[in-house]
Amino acid sequence: MNLLEQIHSPADLRKLPKEQLPALAEEIRRFVIETVAKNGGHLSSNLGVIELTLALHRAFDTPSDRIVWDVGHQAYTHKLITGRKAKFCSLRQVDGLSGFPKRDESEYDCFDVGHASTSISAALGMACARDATGGREKVVAVIGDGSLTGGLAFEGLNQAGHLKKDFILILNDNEMSISPNVGAVSSFLSRKMTSDLFIKFKKETENFLTHLPGFGRDLLSLAKRAEDSLKGFLTPGMLFEAFGFDYIGPIDGHNLEELEETLRNVKRLNGPVLVHVLTRKGKGFAAAESDPATFHGVGPYDAQTGVVHKKAGAAPSYTSIFGETLVKMAQEDKRLVAITAAMLEGTGLKAFAERFPERFFDVGIAEQHAVTFAAGLACRGMRPVVAIYSTFLQRAYDNVLHDVCLQNLPVTFAMDRGGLVGADGPTHHGVFDYSYLRHIPNLVFMVPRDEVALQRTMATALQHDGPFAYRYPRGESEGLPQPTEITPAPIGRGEKLRDGKDGVIFAIGTMVGEALKAAEALAGEGLELAVVDAVFLKPLDRDLMLEEARRTGRVITAEENVLQGGFGSAVLELFEQEQVDSVRTLCIGLPDEFVEQGTQQQLRQRHGIDAAGMAERIRKWYA
Amino acid sequence: MNLLEQIHSPADLRKLPKEQLPALAEEIRRFVIETVAKNGGHLSSNLGVIELTLALHRAFDTPSDRIVWDVGHQAYTHKLITGRKAKFCSLRQVDGLSGFPKRDESEYDCFDVGHASTSISAALGMACARDATGGREKVVAVIGDGSLTGGLAFEGLNQAGHLKKDFILILNDNEMSISPNVGAVSSFLSRKMTSDLFIKFKKETENFLTHLPGFGRDLLSLAKRAEDSLKGFLTPGMLFEAFGFDYIGPIDGHNLEELEETLRNVKRLNGPVLVHVLTRKGKGFAAAESDPATFHGVGPYDAQTGVVHKKAGAAPSYTSIFGETLVKMAQEDKRLVAITAAMLEGTGLKAFAERFPERFFDVGIAEQHAVTFAAGLACRGMRPVVAIYSTFLQRAYDNVLHDVCLQNLPVTFAMDRGGLVGADGPTHHGVFDYSYLRHIPNLVFMVPRDEVALQRTMATALQHDGPFAYRYPRGESEGLPQPTEITPAPIGRGEKLRDGKDGVIFAIGTMVGEALKAAEALAGEGLELAVVDAVFLKPLDRDLMLEEARRTGRVITAEENVLQGGFGSAVLELFEQEQVDSVRTLCIGLPDEFVEQGTQQQLRQRHGIDAAGMAERIRKWYA
Repeated sequence: MNLLEQIHSPADLRKLPKEQLPALAEEIRRFVIETVAKNGGHLSSNLGVIELTLALHRAFDTPSDRIVWDVGHQAYTHKLITGRKAKFCSLRQVDGLSGFPKRDESEYDCFDVGHASTSISAALGMACARDATGGREKVVAVIGDGSLTGGLAFEGLNQAGHLKKDFILILNDNEMSISPNVGAVSSFLSRKMTSDLFIKFKKETENFLTHLPGFGRDLLSLAKRAEDSLKGFLTPGMLFEAFGFDYIGPIDGHNLEELEETLRNVKRLNGPVLVHVLTRKGKGFAAAESDPATFHGVGPYDAQTGVVHKKAGAAPSYTSIFGETLVKMAQEDKRLVAITAAMLEGTGLKAFAERFPERFFDVGIAEQHAVTFAAGLACRGMRPVVAIYSTFLQRAYDNVLHDVCLQNLPVTFAMDRGGLVGADGPTHHGVFDYSYLRHIPNLVFMVPRDEVALQRTMATALQHDGPFAYRYPRGESEGLPQPTEITPAPIGRGEKLRDGKDGVIFAIGTMVGEALKAAEALAGEGLELAVVDAVFLKPLDRDLMLEEARRTGRVITAEENVLQGGFGSAVLELFEQEQVDSVRTLCIGLPDEFVEQGTQQQLRQRHGIDAAGMAERIRKWYA
Repeated sequence: MNLLEQIHSPADLRKLPKEQLPALAEEIRRFVIETVAKNGGHLSSNLGVIELTLALHRAFDTPSDRIVWDVGHQAYTHKLITGRKAKFCSLRQVDGLSGFPKRDESEYDCFDVGHASTSISAALGMACARDATGGREKVVAVIGDGSLTGGLAFEGLNQAGHLKKDFILILNDNEMSISPNVGAVSSFLSRKMTSDLFIKFKKETENFLTHLPGFGRDLLSLAKRAEDSLKGFLTPGMLFEAFGFDYIGPIDGHNLEELEETLRNVKRLNGPVLVHVLTRKGKGFAAAESDPATFHGVGPYDAQTGVVHKKAGAAPSYTSIFGETLVKMAQEDKRLVAITAAMLEGTGLKAFAERFPERFFDVGIAEQHAVTFAAGLACRGMRPVVAIYSTFLQRAYDNVLHDVCLQNLPVTFAMDRGGLVGADGPTHHGVFDYSYLRHIPNLVFMVPRDEVALQRTMATALQHDGPFAYRYPRGESEGLPQPTEITPAPIGRGEKLRDGKDGVIFAIGTMVGEALKAAEALAGEGLELAVVDAVFLKPLDRDLMLEEARRTGRVITAEENVLQGGFGSAVLELFEQEQVDSVRTLCIGLPDEFVEQGTQQQLRQRHGIDAAGMAERIRKWYA
């Protein structure tokens, strides 16, 4: 580690003789591989853009010029060369460096990201503000070909081409997003379409030429040369030219010299320019190059061999139990189809996709379309399951409300990564879904407390003739024995798990286990609390809750969601509706703020929603 | 009215000799013009697709073949010829026919709509379900060129081209959406781009040809002929061919014979096909043809002259007061920029756009982009105001949360059409915004009770250094005198408007006036209620609310929003946080269901949120 230690800011990088750049890139590559091997993180995407990042910071005058990263899971090199090398070992750890760009963290980070397809819109806003205030800086957005399938990117592209502002868009094309890419635009970029179009054109031209009298071989040879001229014309660039961009490329994203020279030239151009850069995900780490999906977001691994560490005796993840159960259900029920938005592996649908290719749809990074497409399937008798992370379903709030719930269609939202997710931090926590879905009419929302309950929840969803949502957490399940039979639960029925005369805890999802532990601990101190698993966020088990509330006079609610508009709020609304005035209530959940990164356990502890924190809050409340 | 009376279903339409079709179209045109003249409604879009609708129902075998309308504000002809002529006079009235397709209303309505850009996704879902179950029906989506700027449409297009299912897309191209269209795709369709590209190609070809030795004039004349051949190739179709669609068109959307023949041919094709149809908004009604924006969604007018009826002595609308105030504020503050998503007139920004063209952005039907673009502007010191209908901001929930609030950026969301909107019904009511925004950290949400308060709210937003939302209702303001000075309000401070010892009503927005009237009425019966205008949904005026609650012991909340997660829910949460146990609470607001269409007053009355309904609820509660 010689060169990297000399780089305290991009100014240092710009001073470096270009002959030393490949060695620097190599140092960074090893450093990233080794750090992520310890902390986990986004490896493939970061290894793909090391050269591109160096070239960008050399060609442009950061921080006054702005680089806006899309998704942001490729900013490790950017962080390393903008003064954050010393803190890099704290990457993705509690109170450490974020895995994504964060404006609070550095003046070099222009926009907070985490969700896909925002960079064009945000950067275009910056460019317009620059022009309105007479600024001169360059604005550069860097977007992957995967993010380009998101409708938001298209909306931004549409306006950028129209406004004709100085605006540089780097298309980081690695022919995949997280799963291999899908969709027409992707095949367009891969030049498959181009060649189809080209063949069509060629046929038409030949036809035309051979029918002209007086011309023979000469013209055909002319046509041959015209072909070559046309080839340059009918490139992937055509699409972007159609949008009003000047197209440059494709260029090799791992050739530092070519990159830097091209970017320096581009800097002198005016108007919207698109630079098409070809990169390879996982570049320089054999394991990641050959299996970029596994190394997209990865836990600790061996930095030499790339073997991913497996926790000995770990229980299967909720994700894998979801995936396996869905395959079983699909064998029984031909109406079941599964949809993912570019998260084949992440949502555990790989086995499903292999087993039922005709009933599996990866729509690309396109959550809105995933939901409305599901509504269309449901209109004609299918039972679509949209498998999606809780945080990404936020993109499709209007589609859930309008296209599914307004029409009362049997679409199921299987929300993975519900609650706190850990190291990915505030952009990825699934802690708003109770609040953004609970007020939507017609929706049933069930929350399993463990993997056996998850399977029961899935069976309940399939037999329910209307919109249905459920959420389950990231990570390991409880390690329970598999149930021999899975029977659907009655809608809106909770479950009393423990009796107690002094009060009752209404808990939901992951908080049920914590509540039981807290009740256990408090029982040792003489405080006897009942515990009820609400099972359903909506509809609530009104009878059970009212009975327990009236019996004990004191209710505690517990949820892994923001308190505003969440589960506790639903219980308070129930008491208001039923005019239950004599009951005192304490709501435990997440506060009205964005929750930072850290392990799930650290964050639950910090915010007092683990068993110990819960017991402490309750103890004080009774004191 | 001879022909239309014979058409009870599309089967009757198909029996009609084609010579009679123009006369039928003409009858329908007059009937639509006259009905909308009485009820108000979407005129321009409906007049544009009369011939297209007739041709579709003749060429396709509805209802077994599916026609999916985008937005749905063009389905009047569709309704008239599918057995709903007799009920057509009830269009958009309470308990009457919906202004949009509705599955509950007819088997010919395949998908409930109201928001833009859903048709491709929904229809593609239906096509996939058909293929999975061995069906044979055709699926046709009809989308306007305006809706095509929505990212959702692009996401659908991307997958449709990829899947290669039998799928027919009709592009209804009238070169505008609601406001004149913007964006690169729009200029592409208008062939401006095409000709630019064509010129570039021509230049390159000529250059190439003139540099070939041994060829002279002949080749240039050849090139001339090649031009014509190329012209057919470089059409708007290129974009859709790039997406994997077969492109057919453009064809005249008012020529019934050509339309029907083309559609019959298209029916025999396989794979994704796009038919490009050119129509004219407002076709056949001079007033609407020359000013389609005014007649997009219009109130009653004279069916002969097209003069729109103005209510004598009507107060200015909230929309116009917003627009005028924004112009004044922008004169003072150069940081202020305004953004609309294709709703220039609807949001009252016309004067602003004329006065400050460099600080005005119409992004097209692209709500997500509107918000993230605003975040980019705010990152670099501007103060963007996103003027948007409450219901359409639902499309950008994730962008509000992630791109604005997570970064605590000073973006203002000016939500017009907050609360019940009237005749447009469930797809347009703005009755979820309290619930979908209240739980987002960092957001301030203020709700003016009248137009003077609206101006104060706007001033407060501009001086606040963080995310800010406010909502105001559709329609006339209260007719108050203009304030001489507008001063910002202190954040989180409510206002006590009336004293009373027996209880207190916490009202917000439109409900403040109703609460005052209710309190007045009840005072006559001996029940003395205080009235507090909450002013802020978030943060609540905790001190004032706690003081009033403790003083009177009985609290009524009143809001024009669903109760789930709304304002009343926030008050209940406050009482829980402060452990106020001795207070009884009654929450008045909208129920957990989709609210139907009707006038605003009819709906407020029906759901008991007008003064009389409120007084009645309170009376019973005190009984």
